[in-house]
Amino acid sequence: MLLRHGESEWNAKGLFTGWVDAGLSAKGEEEARRGGRLLLDAGVRPDVVHTSVLTRAIQTANLALGAADLLWLPVARSWRLNERHYGALQGKDKAQTRAEFGDEQFMLWRRSYDTPPPPLADDDEFSQVGEARYARLPDELLPRTECLKDVVDRMLPYWYDAIVPDLSAGGTVLVVAHGNSLRALVKHLDGIGDDEIAGLNIPTGIPLLYELDDDFHPVAKGGRYLDPEAAKAAIEAVANQGK
Amino acid sequence: MLLRHGESEWNAKGLFTGWVDAGLSAKGEEEARRGGRLLLDAGVRPDVVHTSVLTRAIQTANLALGAADLLWLPVARSWRLNERHYGALQGKDKAQTRAEFGDEQFMLWRRSYDTPPPPLADDDEFSQVGEARYARLPDELLPRTECLKDVVDRMLPYWYDAIVPDLSAGGTVLVVAHGNSLRALVKHLDGIGDDEIAGLNIPTGIPLLYELDDDFHPVAKGGRYLDPEAAKAAIEAVANQGK
Repeated sequence: MLLRHGESEWNAKGLFTGWVDAGLSAKGEEEARRGGRLLLDAGVRPDVVHTSVLTRAIQTANLALGAADLLWLPVARSWRLNERHYGALQGKDKAQTRAEFGDEQFMLWRRSYDTPPPPLADDDEFSQVGEARYARLPDELLPRTECLKDVVDRMLPYWYDAIVPDLSAGGTVLVVAHGNSLRALVKHLDGIGDDEIAGLNIPTGIPLLYELDDDFHPVAKGGRYLDPEAAKAAIEAVANQGK
Repeated sequence: MLLRHGESEWNAKGLFTGWVDAGLSAKGEEEARRGGRLLLDAGVRPDVVHTSVLTRAIQTANLALGAADLLWLPVARSWRLNERHYGALQGKDKAQTRAEFGDEQFMLWRRSYDTPPPPLADDDEFSQVGEARYARLPDELLPRTECLKDVVDRMLPYWYDAIVPDLSAGGTVLVVAHGNSLRALVKHLDGIGDDEIAGLNIPTGIPLLYELDDDFHPVAKGGRYLDPEAAKAAIEAVANQGK
């Protein structure tokens, strides 16, 4: 089961966030609690939780689990579930970036599968070099920029080595992560092509349930949102933003 | 490093809590955040966190880690760090119990090392039999009552098998737990006798730092509270309650 974190303080401000560790906004906190109540109402009880190491995903997990009376669940965290690293765009205003570089370049950075933005300098104020939370990560694994393909490549080992074993044990697994790390996982699960994935958006705060067969492939492609009407409305709202 | 959870809603009401899953009161939430700020101010950064599976300890850990910007730390949870099971006293009013059974019996249940209260019936509304969080615990391990000696016996395997390995790896370990599971751990660390342990109280919300030698014994007995004056005042307040 997948859950995208709620609105962060930086989403609300219209800034590229990526690996910058913004916390949830008040709206994002409420989205997280609502996600937990949806779990409770649907009678879906995870056996274990996986989160990224970014605060907004961990806050979402904690608030959702609190609302579902499931704070006691075992939890694992990994940088491999982090949001896509946005490179030199991190900390930049989205609207200003679009005006400065033009629509075409802007959409290429946001939506192309394999074109990353320019790398972020290690001495940039929004760089993660030197952060305590990545102290045990060899430097060559710490990204300076990523395209979605890079996210798929670094996320998949975690799927195979950490999540699949929990599924093999017969458990229900809750993954609380980010727009792009969850798109990367859904791309893998549903077998979505490199060109098609640009059109996929996962709404915030609405649990997305996949039932998997013995080979860990979805019984039904696309899974099932626990609040399908809210998910449909949120997906349409994103689609209409581009028009 | 040890941290006792802040005031729970049941502490505030004067009820025996034990394994009943009461949440923190507003005061307890503030104590937890203060504990996190003490960590931050002291420049003490844990590498890993261990909690019980009771909500009040997990909330304390989450709030303290949030205040210290450390939500990303790996965390493990175990029933072996739970509060002492208070048996048939769980859910009972402390003052009423004292009036009903007399001072001597009351103090024996509260403070003797090896006399547990009567067991809690499995069909009691405050029993943990059937709770999802203990579904993987063989029935013979789920306590129906405990004295402090029982807590020492079930806590020590977790110390040796889960916490010591983290210490061996060179890390700083934060244990967020309960009055009696932490007393059990301190009894072990400081080598306190069965008769002396009754006099030991650990204040809520103030991190207690132990530096350990290569054999995982304290360099200085009793450790060091990160706010020693507040700890002294809290310990004296508890001592004066009995007068």
